[in-house]
Amino acid sequence: MHNETIDLLCKHRSIRKYQQQPLKLEQIELILKAAQSVSSSNFLQCSTIIRITDMIRRKKLAHYSGDQNYITQAPEFWVFCADFNRHYQIEPGLQLEKAEQLLLGCIDTAIMAQNVVVAAESLGLGAVYIGGLRNNIDKVTELLAIPKYVLPLFGLCIGYPDPADNPEVKPRLPKELVIFKNQYQPINRNLLKQYDEQINNYYQHRSTNQKVGGWSDKIAKIINQENRDFILAYLHKQGWITK
Amino acid sequence: MHNETIDLLCKHRSIRKYQQQPLKLEQIELILKAAQSVSSSNFLQCSTIIRITDMIRRKKLAHYSGDQNYITQAPEFWVFCADFNRHYQIEPGLQLEKAEQLLLGCIDTAIMAQNVVVAAESLGLGAVYIGGLRNNIDKVTELLAIPKYVLPLFGLCIGYPDPADNPEVKPRLPKELVIFKNQYQPINRNLLKQYDEQINNYYQHRSTNQKVGGWSDKIAKIINQENRDFILAYLHKQGWITK
Repeated sequence: MHNETIDLLCKHRSIRKYQQQPLKLEQIELILKAAQSVSSSNFLQCSTIIRITDMIRRKKLAHYSGDQNYITQAPEFWVFCADFNRHYQIEPGLQLEKAEQLLLGCIDTAIMAQNVVVAAESLGLGAVYIGGLRNNIDKVTELLAIPKYVLPLFGLCIGYPDPADNPEVKPRLPKELVIFKNQYQPINRNLLKQYDEQINNYYQHRSTNQKVGGWSDKIAKIINQENRDFILAYLHKQGWITK
Repeated sequence: MHNETIDLLCKHRSIRKYQQQPLKLEQIELILKAAQSVSSSNFLQCSTIIRITDMIRRKKLAHYSGDQNYITQAPEFWVFCADFNRHYQIEPGLQLEKAEQLLLGCIDTAIMAQNVVVAAESLGLGAVYIGGLRNNIDKVTELLAIPKYVLPLFGLCIGYPDPADNPEVKPRLPKELVIFKNQYQPINRNLLKQYDEQINNYYQHRSTNQKVGGWSDKIAKIINQENRDFILAYLHKQGWITK
């Protein structure tokens, strides 16, 4: 029952080291076509991609994202934006300040980006999402001349994986903790404990960056470190969720 | 340069009529594995799927979503939730009220759902996203016993397409309006006009539900109709973006 596409999805790893080889125009166009073929809520098509070819901008974005230097090394770096400014340019009277627009913009833009990842991987390329773009979202907004009702959500590096870098596939949560039947369920602590042991084992034995610890014990630190508490003020400034 | 996966992505259409044939358990497990293989920001794994097998709940969800009866007819109906309650159960002191958590939860849950769509389509299945689930998000929350820090974002119907229903692929915006180089660009009105003509032509000649009109002239009506202006209050009640 397996097939090529499912095998591709299941062997996904984030790629952070790339060969210098650029993408062909034809590859970029195919990837874009796959991106645009995604579902769109009410056919609003509320997503925009900004492709960063200018190396000065790339370096700034790499720095703003927490000095993730693969942003400058990857042949392609695309910034994905939820975009209702396009609609606003067409209909300047539109009311776009509702939380619904934010949810819709995030969902539609994310599913589009995932098609980019899948299409790229099917061509032998690798990719990594850059949520760190939100570390300095104000500066990103200025650098890319992003207007009101547009929200830069994340970046995506794309390129041929460096064969010297071959990250393992990380074990995910047991499916019983992620899919429930008919209603939400409290966490199964036994399964969680087993998973923490599995992750601890994975971290200790992976090929690079070995460490000790499970999944549960890292949550608090990550969430507290990465809560970017300026995002709400930023959203308001850009016209989102003000009403 | 085409391949099976890209062809699959490019021929995506939403499927709203299904054969009665249920999915095999093995198919569901494969689809789930593909779903869980998606990237996860900081490996927080902040998404949960609620699979609705109970037909009483299905009928209620179909009604809440604006009487979309394919929700009851589809062999599978899954509700996708951004979920930080799992983390909260593990670390009850966590601060989860920031807008960052909302963005992260929406993005990660949406990309997971898109892997479900792609995996399902690769198995010959069809799917449709149900954003209408947010029409009565309060009732959905109650029906599925959804706690604080969990946000039901959309549903997804999955099943074998009814061969009698064969929707066309809708033409998307010209790529020049969707991907920009290095910075945001104002809309190209000539290309938009051409696209409106293309869409008008598509709507007039498609196999069902023919109508007249372009893309631009539908935007205002859709956004005003679907702005669900209770979402912000709902988010606050569920513990999202309160700080």
